Amino acid sequence: MKIYFAASIRGGRDDVDVYRQLIDHLNLNNQVLTEHIGDYSLSVAGQNQLDDDYICNRDMSWLAECDLVVAETSNPSLGVGYELASAERLHKPVIILHNAKRSQLSAMIAGTQYFDHIFNYSNIAEAFQILDRELPSI
Amino acid sequence: MKIYFAASIRGGRDDVDVYRQLIDHLNLNNQVLTEHIGDYSLSVAGQNQLDDDYICNRDMSWLAECDLVVAETSNPSLGVGYELASAERLHKPVIILHNAKRSQLSAMIAGTQYFDHIFNYSNIAEAFQILDRELPSI
Repeated sequence: MKIYFAASIRGGRDDVDVYRQLIDHLNLNNQVLTEHIGDYSLSVAGQNQLDDDYICNRDMSWLAECDLVVAETSNPSLGVGYELASAERLHKPVIILHNAKRSQLSAMIAGTQYFDHIFNYSNIAEAFQILDRELPSI
Repeated sequence: MKIYFAASIRGGRDDVDVYRQLIDHLNLNNQVLTEHIGDYSLSVAGQNQLDDDYICNRDMSWLAECDLVVAETSNPSLGVGYELASAERLHKPVIILHNAKRSQLSAMIAGTQYFDHIFNYSNIAEAFQILDRELPSI
């Protein structure tokens, strides 16, 4: 399965270690198209070498190509909000992982009926369990 | 003109003073539908008394009703990213105000061709000037 993993880049990289572990776990039996999101060397300003138009077109192509979107939403991010709305528009299945200890999920996401696979987790083992349980049904 | 003002709530309220001033300025000659975003008493968890479904439905109704979306994007926010994608889907005119001293705007927003009215500002007087210059052409 081709997976579009969505998480914060310019919104903040505090959780990059979590992103890396989630991507590695998903990659065991799937192909994560957006592997760069787990790259430790990618800082808040890390994609500056690439043009915004290029990044946006590349990511929207991957979104159109994917079978599933997995979004980590604990760090607020304009891009992830935009990607979630785009996933809804493209009728892509969406799994949202949210660490409620880190932040409260936006009402615009939590209140949108399309997003009916929102899971709170508190540690990485729990996140893996959620993914292992949910992915086979996609 | 009916204006949907979009800015961070659960993503963080550091800039509420800026939101309040922008809303007051817009309200001089227009009607801001989302006035609560400038409410000092509305904390990150401030809308907890309202149901997420209610908030989301109310805001999407306002978005459908508005003539213009003005988004302040300096504080990363899932909700604002979702609202911007929804404004694009509904073909609403969008003005984005961004304080580049606070953060770097998401590539998914800066790189989307539909968002062709993105303005950097560094103080509130400059933001007022941008709005006064741009609004008559909407």
